[in-house]
Amino acid sequence: MSESIHVIGHQQPDTDAITAALVHARLKQRQGVDAVPARAGEINPETEFVLDHWDVDPPSLLEDATDEELILVDHNEHSQTVSGAREAAVTEVVDHHRIGDVTTSNPIHFRNEPVGSTATVLAGLFEEAGEAIDSQTAGLLLSGLLSDTVVLRSPTTTDRDREVAEKLAAIADVDYEEYGKTLLTQKSKLGEKSPREMVLGDFKEFEFGSTLVGIGQVETVSPDVVLDQRDEIIAAMDEVLDERSYDVFVMLVTDLLEEDSTAFVAGDHTDTVAEALDTTFEDREAFLPGVMSRKKQVVPKLEAALR
Amino acid sequence: MSESIHVIGHQQPDTDAITAALVHARLKQRQGVDAVPARAGEINPETEFVLDHWDVDPPSLLEDATDEELILVDHNEHSQTVSGAREAAVTEVVDHHRIGDVTTSNPIHFRNEPVGSTATVLAGLFEEAGEAIDSQTAGLLLSGLLSDTVVLRSPTTTDRDREVAEKLAAIADVDYEEYGKTLLTQKSKLGEKSPREMVLGDFKEFEFGSTLVGIGQVETVSPDVVLDQRDEIIAAMDEVLDERSYDVFVMLVTDLLEEDSTAFVAGDHTDTVAEALDTTFEDREAFLPGVMSRKKQVVPKLEAALR
Repeated sequence: MSESIHVIGHQQPDTDAITAALVHARLKQRQGVDAVPARAGEINPETEFVLDHWDVDPPSLLEDATDEELILVDHNEHSQTVSGAREAAVTEVVDHHRIGDVTTSNPIHFRNEPVGSTATVLAGLFEEAGEAIDSQTAGLLLSGLLSDTVVLRSPTTTDRDREVAEKLAAIADVDYEEYGKTLLTQKSKLGEKSPREMVLGDFKEFEFGSTLVGIGQVETVSPDVVLDQRDEIIAAMDEVLDERSYDVFVMLVTDLLEEDSTAFVAGDHTDTVAEALDTTFEDREAFLPGVMSRKKQVVPKLEAALR
Repeated sequence: MSESIHVIGHQQPDTDAITAALVHARLKQRQGVDAVPARAGEINPETEFVLDHWDVDPPSLLEDATDEELILVDHNEHSQTVSGAREAAVTEVVDHHRIGDVTTSNPIHFRNEPVGSTATVLAGLFEEAGEAIDSQTAGLLLSGLLSDTVVLRSPTTTDRDREVAEKLAAIADVDYEEYGKTLLTQKSKLGEKSPREMVLGDFKEFEFGSTLVGIGQVETVSPDVVLDQRDEIIAAMDEVLDERSYDVFVMLVTDLLEEDSTAFVAGDHTDTVAEALDTTFEDREAFLPGVMSRKKQVVPKLEAALR
């Protein structure tokens, strides 16, 4: 057990989860809190590029949060928290997702906003605290924001995200369209990944009532690289479903340029999933025109249908 | 089902719950939202005095929230929500309590702060939105703040509450110490109440794991009026415990001047409750020196012991 409070994002961390942990720990430190950034899983290639580009060390891996104090960023449900979080004390939450099942015994700061990234919420917290954002911090926040909103193209993007992105880009002194394109290319580096790694790379687990649901997503500018391996990917999904006793497993392959997705499905409720997503599965594959956001366009519909 | 969004506080509403609903509905309306204030129960004498003093109509009673859209203020757990709230869509939360079990399918604004009143959080929301607080609105917010913090004397009171109270008192043009004393007198008007009304007047229900717990509180400047009827009050507690199948029922009689409480207990786990509160019950009664806050000094300890 450590004396410090760990600021930590979700399992299978993406860039927003890692940069939010790094940046919020900085804000808390400036406010006199003994906070350290942490992570609940491996760093993905896009995030590795970001940390390299802005010359920042990755947060250290927290393997077990039992008896620790935690500040959760970029998530607020236990199916996505670091191992041991149910036996930890959550002392703050900063997020931009649906409201999940994390409860506390004492009143805490809980700040959730319906915007495109946790970075956007954090930029607001710096403003409110009257704390300046330095160039490196702006670079980290901008990376989380552009990554989560697919360079402001995802339907989760709000005017507030656009406004914050402009400000951060000015402080960090980058052209955010150009920098964003570099991030998309990094996100798409799937060449060396096994089907199982693709399936579990950006993966979230949900409990809808008693139904256990896994939803994975690959975001890429070259979907063909993924779709060419559809049989192997579906086999990997069946394997994971079996190991983890999921009732439903949906995998989205999102085309970042065309702004739509292909879905694969595994498990028992294919008809319900098809109806919820207003599509038809043929040979366990379906096309979802205009769908880019797991959070906004998939999770609420599956929850309504499967709960 | 109504088109408007209902802004609503908890059952057995206190002054902070009612004024928060009234004031937050005003803020939402100014922001172009079709929001109406509502209440989930009867207005208590203190709140009646406040509404009268500031010449404001009470929010209308919402009997069933099924299929409605709700903004929850001053609470965020289902055991305290208006009837039907589980079948409603919660679109926003503004609160200052522990994080409860309300979940949503979509991302929403969720704003919880560890301060003395929901009024304090709302004052911040007006500031952030750049909206001015008029004299009547300041009067309502100040009433919620002073009522919940026992005129800034409760241990839940923070520096932020003191700062906001000063500002609101200036806008509303009242001496907050003097106005606060008037509120305390109103809060203490227990003379005509039956033991059952005292027990259920300011009452909250909690689920700690599978343990169902009721915690009532009477805050008064004349505790003797209540303590003289201890046998009748305990009988009323037994009756309520039985009707509602509670496992534990704790009742606090809080002396606002001496700043301590007497507790009565009903149900199965007296020894656990005694240990949790670091006291001993004799003939189902215990003295709790320095205890004024259900939220901060009682709920966390009972949750830890009973979950």
